[in-house]
Amino acid sequence: MPCNQNETRLPTEDPQMTWDDATWILTSSFIIFTMQSGFGLLEAGCVSAKNEVNIMVKNAVDVVFGGITYWAFGYGLTFGQGKYANAFCGVGSFLLDSENEKEMGIVYSTFIFQLSFATTATTIVSGAMAERTKLTAYILYSLTNTWVYCVSAHWLWVDGGFLRDLGVVDIAGSGGVHVLGAVSALVAAVMLGPRQGKYDGGKLDPPGNPTNSLIGMFMLWWGWLGFNCGSTFGISGGKWILAAKSAVTTITASMGGGVSGMLFSWIINKRKFVVTDLVNSVLTSLVSVTAGCAVIRPWEAILSGSLAAILSFIVNPIFKYFKVDDPVGAFAVHGIGGIWGMIVVGLFADIDPIEDVTRGRAGLFHGGGVYLLGVQILALVCIAAWSAMCSIILLSIIKKAVGLRMSSEDEILGADYTEHGLVKFDNGIDIKQNKSRRRSSFGFQVFHVN
Amino acid sequence: MPCNQNETRLPTEDPQMTWDDATWILTSSFIIFTMQSGFGLLEAGCVSAKNEVNIMVKNAVDVVFGGITYWAFGYGLTFGQGKYANAFCGVGSFLLDSENEKEMGIVYSTFIFQLSFATTATTIVSGAMAERTKLTAYILYSLTNTWVYCVSAHWLWVDGGFLRDLGVVDIAGSGGVHVLGAVSALVAAVMLGPRQGKYDGGKLDPPGNPTNSLIGMFMLWWGWLGFNCGSTFGISGGKWILAAKSAVTTITASMGGGVSGMLFSWIINKRKFVVTDLVNSVLTSLVSVTAGCAVIRPWEAILSGSLAAILSFIVNPIFKYFKVDDPVGAFAVHGIGGIWGMIVVGLFADIDPIEDVTRGRAGLFHGGGVYLLGVQILALVCIAAWSAMCSIILLSIIKKAVGLRMSSEDEILGADYTEHGLVKFDNGIDIKQNKSRRRSSFGFQVFHVN
Amino acid sequence: MPCNQNETRLPTEDPQMTWDDATWILTSSFIIFTMQSGFGLLEAGCVSAKNEVNIMVKNAVDVVFGGITYWAFGYGLTFGQGKYANAFCGVGSFLLDSENEKEMGIVYSTFIFQLSFATTATTIVSGAMAERTKLTAYILYSLTNTWVYCVSAHWLWVDGGFLRDLGVVDIAGSGGVHVLGAVSALVAAVMLGPRQGKYDGGKLDPPGNPTNSLIGMFMLWWGWLGFNCGSTFGISGGKWILAAKSAVTTITASMGGGVSGMLFSWIINKRKFVVTDLVNSVLTSLVSVTAGCAVIRPWEAILSGSLAAILSFIVNPIFKYFKVDDPVGAFAVHGIGGIWGMIVVGLFADIDPIEDVTRGRAGLFHGGGVYLLGVQILALVCIAAWSAMCSIILLSIIKKAVGLRMSSEDEILGADYTEHGLVKFDNGIDIKQNKSRRRSSFGFQVFHVN
Repeated sequence: MPCNQNETRLPTEDPQMTWDDATWILTSSFIIFTMQSGFGLLEAGCVSAKNEVNIMVKNAVDVVFGGITYWAFGYGLTFGQGKYANAFCGVGSFLLDSENEKEMGIVYSTFIFQLSFATTATTIVSGAMAERTKLTAYILYSLTNTWVYCVSAHWLWVDGGFLRDLGVVDIAGSGGVHVLGAVSALVAAVMLGPRQGKYDGGKLDPPGNPTNSLIGMFMLWWGWLGFNCGSTFGISGGKWILAAKSAVTTITASMGGGVSGMLFSWIINKRKFVVTDLVNSVLTSLVSVTAGCAVIRPWEAILSGSLAAILSFIVNPIFKYFKVDDPVGAFAVHGIGGIWGMIVVGLFADIDPIEDVTRGRAGLFHGGGVYLLGVQILALVCIAAWSAMCSIILLSIIKKAVGLRMSSEDEILGADYTEHGLVKFDNGIDIKQNKSRRRSSFGFQVFHVN
Repeated sequence: MPCNQNETRLPTEDPQMTWDDATWILTSSFIIFTMQSGFGLLEAGCVSAKNEVNIMVKNAVDVVFGGITYWAFGYGLTFGQGKYANAFCGVGSFLLDSENEKEMGIVYSTFIFQLSFATTATTIVSGAMAERTKLTAYILYSLTNTWVYCVSAHWLWVDGGFLRDLGVVDIAGSGGVHVLGAVSALVAAVMLGPRQGKYDGGKLDPPGNPTNSLIGMFMLWWGWLGFNCGSTFGISGGKWILAAKSAVTTITASMGGGVSGMLFSWIINKRKFVVTDLVNSVLTSLVSVTAGCAVIRPWEAILSGSLAAILSFIVNPIFKYFKVDDPVGAFAVHGIGGIWGMIVVGLFADIDPIEDVTRGRAGLFHGGGVYLLGVQILALVCIAAWSAMCSIILLSIIKKAVGLRMSSEDEILGADYTEHGLVKFDNGIDIKQNKSRRRSSFGFQVFHVN
Repeated sequence: MPCNQNETRLPTEDPQMTWDDATWILTSSFIIFTMQSGFGLLEAGCVSAKNEVNIMVKNAVDVVFGGITYWAFGYGLTFGQGKYANAFCGVGSFLLDSENEKEMGIVYSTFIFQLSFATTATTIVSGAMAERTKLTAYILYSLTNTWVYCVSAHWLWVDGGFLRDLGVVDIAGSGGVHVLGAVSALVAAVMLGPRQGKYDGGKLDPPGNPTNSLIGMFMLWWGWLGFNCGSTFGISGGKWILAAKSAVTTITASMGGGVSGMLFSWIINKRKFVVTDLVNSVLTSLVSVTAGCAVIRPWEAILSGSLAAILSFIVNPIFKYFKVDDPVGAFAVHGIGGIWGMIVVGLFADIDPIEDVTRGRAGLFHGGGVYLLGVQILALVCIAAWSAMCSIILLSIIKKAVGLRMSSEDEILGADYTEHGLVKFDNGIDIKQNKSRRRSSFGFQVFHVN
């Protein structure tokens, strides 16, 4: 996300955008895309073996179908500068194309960078919907969810957007990406209801592959460096200094989160280190440093990251009480981390003499009073309300149209079989007889339906 | 692949090559190498569990053995500027070294970037040869296959190369990498014959791990951004604009391919989304945008990518009819995608005012007439003929020397056991008794032969 | 590691550090962090299935706990310029922070780059301690081990460090990272003693997943390009030329190592290519080119890489004789590769006219006499002695405090169960009855202790 006012406009001519900035933006975008592999593996490792392939496919769907609509209208809703553009959304630049040599570079750089953000916002939801959502419903959701992200991105990051004009600071999207995605995830989890076996006295199939979850965590971790540091949206002038600072605060926040999360897990689980606690602690702390990476200091990142990890533990008992089923902890990680991350800026942000990221304001603990904190909370309220409202509408329409939830039988059989025709013979599931199925003593196989 | 005439020469002095360009070229090279992990996982996921390790090793062999010959003579065959250099191949710069401070930077940057391309061209073939090729034969093939790529790279990308002088445009190698590799793959598949169980009424062991295939697809996807965008071979001047444009067309092409491929798969498979269809659709569309990434527009990329994915579905029934066995769909992806990608340039390329990539020419749909289309088709014919001829000769010699195909017994036991001594106890295969084998109830183990 | 004298100081003002350099340093750091995923997968693939998750967690611990102490005092021990700084270690810059705009960029860039190095040095040890070390002990080790690396980094890479002042050349850490880590690994392996079943006539559980080992090798391979090339610590001036040269020598060394290692393995194993031989050969050759990547030539890299791989085969029989158990071959790869790599500089280094990396000296074979070779050997002795001494002290204290080794019963059950509560039902291990355990016919599950 652009830190600097000058770069957020869709510039028809930007004298400051150089190939050095382009190198940074493009390289960062490429790194951010690798996070899609991370999300996929993390989720694949958390779900039961019978839904592992399906959740990977859903992560691909986010790029493919979500990307098409981002191209068609998403970019324009955020950055369009047509005459109807307003404080609520952009208008123009739909079906993105550019023939003007002067603007082409910046338009295309912005597109690829922002696309990687939009994709992330949608992917967050896939985890909360895991193991019980129809793939067709998920495809429709990926297609339509784009606009939820793109409108609030306009509020936050484009001059004229109403939150930006108030002075909000959300550098790489604690609010605009993570809270947005987490609230949608929560809505989806509630509307879908829990998986069979989760709260009905039955049994869930266990998570299939914790090693994959850990590799997914690693991939997200390193990708996050591109995510936060790339959000200087350039490297020239003083931006390289902010990028270096962002790298340090990002990694130190994750250390804080990892340490506190592991210790906390060890204590509450009677001397066991639960793997999902480690994964979620590291990721929550990364989410929490995403809004303020360039404007807080390393020790503040460690402190706030540590708190973020502890705070995320609160979600599980609450969800248990209300019987909300969020299989991969999407709300705990992205919701709690994101909310706290926005507040961290209101508390810890300092005036930035280098690129004036905070536009002259400081947080509460640096003598800036409560104004910035107030704006950050207002932004949280707006983003959460917007995300909740849109998700309810979108998912209700999709529910009417094709249905959200798999049939009970399909859920038991698993989506790898019912959606993709894959049979895993050693998983102990009693797959119904079918003549065209080839026999095997081990492994997956493609189910030939014709 | 260099877009710009000035950069393709092996310059003894290039005033325009700066450290900014080096940053771009080196970073892109490092990203492209990660595609080797992607190819490995994709192929490992597609083959049966008993050959999974072996196919990974073959992907390492491509870098190790293919790299040694690229260093020894490959680079020189493409870029050598000795007095015998001609329109057919370069001569000179063998056993690559450089002591001249002025040329060292550009020579070494070109070497590492081109090496990543050469390795890719060879790796394509490994998929088509999977599950039945001796490792020794494959090593000999990797050693010798280098020159096939390197000679045609000279035609396409070096001033004086005969196709380049005619005006061919193949920015990142739809023809020079993918068609070249795919034709070799087809030759190899035909010469090897199908796997036991494929067309003889028997049964194949099923693919082992679709999740690995999907992770492999993701890794290739993000790596492709480095592949296509890095092919501006620099970032200075207007190259950064073309790099940004290439990123956008690359990703939008894959969206088009993913959407059309998933829908097509869903229709023909009676409402199942077959995983290999998704994987191959995305990859085929990426191959199809590789030749023209910097000279076509985003919507053209979506359209041509969509068509590429649909076209790739045609291969399977044809191969079935002729009993050609290509286990990972190497020809469908790289052959069809590559052929169509070269034609796309002839149809959709526009004049490039920034770096003059097309040297003043446009494709048929942009008023450039049929000349460029004709040159592109000529290039395809030359590349395909060259690749077929060389592969037949090389593989025939290797067949005489050490034999191409495993023994029937080895093929049934699987290459992980026969080539690497690995025993997977739960795979239901009746491994012959051996005293030195240690017992285990689960997992792999190393077979100690001495 | 900085090649150039000017960049190693903690500069309060560095007129030469530009955003171009920052782009290179930060991007390299991000690539180096991906090596942590590689180490994790490599080790996870080498250990038995019952310890796979635990070893992944230990790799995360290295970043989380090792990182916290690097922030707290590690950076300061290497780069601190307080008035008590001396030839042995830096003093100052503890609890790293920076408010000075002029130094902030270089301090934070150096921190993130060096952190990725420190993490690597610790991770090397985790492999040698695999399958029998308590996680609490390992956490304490990660916390304290930081200072071992940081002090010797001061000797090698900071002006005033005693080895640097003598003229040592260890560009990316053959000695400072790999020998240091390998000697600690050896000490740890000896102090822990062998795993049950290794040398007591019993049986080890077999390695779980060679495919993961190979993917880990691939990830390390590409990450190594960032490691060695990033060690120019900048791209401006002539550094880009050295970065390009380093890329070429790094990759050619690995080719040499891969070729010789595979052939050697094939010969001694009676025509089997043992997977761990391939993995360790490639990695050993990469370690061996790490000290001299920018000052030796491509053919010298091939030659020395080939020798490195062969040399690493010597460790296994020696360890067998002395009953030392190093499950993933940490000493063979990092110890032998690192020792040889330091010597390679003393033999093959040439005067570097571009950035004067060797400060006017050349190795024995380039007419520089034995001085440089002598300094390199002195550095090896100092590093090895320091690492051994510190490790013995640290591990002895940890042994007293919490114990190093798991109980015999825990070792048989596996750390995934005993440390993380994970049960893998199809692994044939007789897990003791527990009421709260949920049953499943397949896969892992979380063990709920409360």
